[in-house]
Amino acid sequence: MSARLIAVGIGPGDPELITLKGARLLREADVVVAPKASAGDDSVAGSIVAGLVDLSRQQLIEQVYPMRKGQEELDPFWRAAALEVAELVRRGQTVAFVTLGDPMLYSTFLYLQRQLRAIAPEVPIEIVSGLSSIHAAAALADLPLGIADERLAVLPATFEDGRLRQTLLEFDTVVLMKVSRVFDKVRALLKELGGRRAVYVKRVGLPGEAVFHDLDAVGPEDLDYLSLVIVRKV
Amino acid sequence: MSARLIAVGIGPGDPELITLKGARLLREADVVVAPKASAGDDSVAGSIVAGLVDLSRQQLIEQVYPMRKGQEELDPFWRAAALEVAELVRRGQTVAFVTLGDPMLYSTFLYLQRQLRAIAPEVPIEIVSGLSSIHAAAALADLPLGIADERLAVLPATFEDGRLRQTLLEFDTVVLMKVSRVFDKVRALLKELGGRRAVYVKRVGLPGEAVFHDLDAVGPEDLDYLSLVIVRKV
Repeated sequence: MSARLIAVGIGPGDPELITLKGARLLREADVVVAPKASAGDDSVAGSIVAGLVDLSRQQLIEQVYPMRKGQEELDPFWRAAALEVAELVRRGQTVAFVTLGDPMLYSTFLYLQRQLRAIAPEVPIEIVSGLSSIHAAAALADLPLGIADERLAVLPATFEDGRLRQTLLEFDTVVLMKVSRVFDKVRALLKELGGRRAVYVKRVGLPGEAVFHDLDAVGPEDLDYLSLVIVRKV
Repeated sequence: MSARLIAVGIGPGDPELITLKGARLLREADVVVAPKASAGDDSVAGSIVAGLVDLSRQQLIEQVYPMRKGQEELDPFWRAAALEVAELVRRGQTVAFVTLGDPMLYSTFLYLQRQLRAIAPEVPIEIVSGLSSIHAAAALADLPLGIADERLAVLPATFEDGRLRQTLLEFDTVVLMKVSRVFDKVRALLKELGGRRAVYVKRVGLPGEAVFHDLDAVGPEDLDYLSLVIVRKV
């Protein structure tokens, strides 16, 4: 393989939901880079692809990206990560960066790509799409994301109430990401609006996966960063 | 395998973009059902999975679903398809229905599922998520669908101008599906609004795939039903 960075979307968590292409390129890569939230943590993405990586002939590098911090605090981590990746590619290595879900939607990869373009624009980047958790959650919740001429919105639930309400009124299906921090407000708003089915999907494809078809059954202990709510007009 | 209907999302077209699970269940199924637009056509989905189906031990059934017709005209086709699938499952067969993209988003499967629930609710249905063309198109166009707290809208471009304009103003990224029939109006609207990158992606993952980073370079001969435009604020 020619030296380059390959962003491999590994899907929501089930190792069987990686694409054939993603699995092949992971097996062929010289180096697999897996992001993790802190030095003491395991890499979620790394653990998902563990069965595809052969440590006897491939190098596995874990890079630390603290989550839930401001852009200014994160930038130095991304720059260091980009420098490390660029150096590997310059030495002729094929580097596969594994990212949960799809590389083009709310992924860690997009930050890495931005840095790489700035500091090492000569590094070739290939993107292998992966299954977003949104699709896996819709299957688990048994809620269509869109039929025929329907409209779909995907947004972080942290938006201020007015815009969230407006979006819920205007779209047939709304997927609320990062919902755990504002769950009570979202639940109250949905009750007030009525006329909608709402399903809370927690950690789809990961340990602790759960589906709640009744939002009132969701307790504080069920809230998780990797969770979402799908709302659909009935 | 236990008798049931399995909806397998086969992704946008590249056979390597099927998931490991989708490929395995297709190989294990007794019957593979592939939809096609008319009796004289080949099945696009069927041709994508041809390399995974073994006709010496598996049955391949093509079902006709005319596209771009009204719901009333289509319903009899879906009912007949659902009856055929239900009969196969009742006889103990495992039936894999292949659908382009993801089964939960703008898929043929959602119509089949609706009919099956009405006429044969006892048939177990399993859904295996697939890669939507939206993600593959974003990778090809090199346009993120969402970063950090951004908002994404997906809608058929056939909506009347006022709502389309409103959505383009309110969302960071907008994916316009089924854009070929209203391409000129969409192009004019985007010119008027300004401040956005727009990429036309034609037949992603299929024969005839093409990417246009300049909408003015898109001629009438480039318009295709399986095409979309990704619009992103800059």
